[in-house]
Amino acid sequence: MAEDNLLIPLDEYLKAGIHIGTKYKSKDMSNFIYKIRQDGLSIFNIEAINNRLNVAAEFISKYKPEDILIICRRENGWVPVNLFSEITGVRNITGRYPPGLLTNTNLDNYIEAKLAIVVDPLPDRNALKDSVRSGMPIVALCDTNNDCKNVDLVIPCNNKGKKSLGLVFYVLAKEYMKRRKLIKSEKDFKYTLEDFSKE
Amino acid sequence: MAEDNLLIPLDEYLKAGIHIGTKYKSKDMSNFIYKIRQDGLSIFNIEAINNRLNVAAEFISKYKPEDILIICRRENGWVPVNLFSEITGVRNITGRYPPGLLTNTNLDNYIEAKLAIVVDPLPDRNALKDSVRSGMPIVALCDTNNDCKNVDLVIPCNNKGKKSLGLVFYVLAKEYMKRRKLIKSEKDFKYTLEDFSKE
Repeated sequence: MAEDNLLIPLDEYLKAGIHIGTKYKSKDMSNFIYKIRQDGLSIFNIEAINNRLNVAAEFISKYKPEDILIICRRENGWVPVNLFSEITGVRNITGRYPPGLLTNTNLDNYIEAKLAIVVDPLPDRNALKDSVRSGMPIVALCDTNNDCKNVDLVIPCNNKGKKSLGLVFYVLAKEYMKRRKLIKSEKDFKYTLEDFSKE
Repeated sequence: MAEDNLLIPLDEYLKAGIHIGTKYKSKDMSNFIYKIRQDGLSIFNIEAINNRLNVAAEFISKYKPEDILIICRRENGWVPVNLFSEITGVRNITGRYPPGLLTNTNLDNYIEAKLAIVVDPLPDRNALKDSVRSGMPIVALCDTNNDCKNVDLVIPCNNKGKKSLGLVFYVLAKEYMKRRKLIKSEKDFKYTLEDFSKE
């Protein structure tokens, strides 16, 4: 893997622990797993993570902010997801997903979106189910334990840690702004990786 | 499944045998498989096929024709792929993939593309490998026997039969023209399903 094909330096990926999976290895995720560590944790291939992040950034950038919805029940994702939204204008639901929000047109808070980004298919399963029913493409962060049924585009990564989630949304925010030409170059992106994983 | 959510009537899907897989069932494709028939053939869930065709059409329609490349070694795909290209202006490589075409910038026939559509990851493995190296998103038709490693967006389907391949490219061509607003409505699409699976 050439370092210059990476969206972020290799040591940043490693420091965030984006490649550290769980002790459980689902068959759906086995293609992305590079090895099982002696302590039993499954480890992702960093190149696979980087390539999928690149494809996901490309995919997401084809959509206007108002057409995208991020779903994140896990608390460790709230800081990065909210900062991503602040920068890009993309909507999000953090915390509990209100039933029917994406499917029940009679609800006052009914949301129409064209692309869903799901942080973890397991805790976010209700929102995932409704996204499927509404016919949207679904991009999801999937850890080594996830079942990827109904996920259209998988981003393999540690989707549990603060630093790892911070890195994913830092990269996606920067690439979204660049690829939609909302900033001229990387230098105009004023946020740091640390901003995305603040306590 | 509501009939009106289908891109094409249910009986057209069935007549084309788009849901008839192979006797081999890969673990990557198991999520899309509905049952194993008594004769040992794995059968796809039609709803899953329809949903992914919809997502793929949506995804592909975000790209200009000149940025897309279809790769198809299998002869049964040549008629539908060539007709798709004729209608949409998307390039294709049918038959043997010339080594380095997507990666070697020194070649006279070097092709730069932003999205690859692969008809079968197995016979098209060299082109798939080069697409990965060039960093493009990869959409692939995957049968029940396929390994989906490196495929970003899977369209589960029978990727071997003439009628089935005809149906896939008929639907994709019609949706591409509609979603890019190159035709005003479905009625303006002058090609039939039969045109896509001619001998």
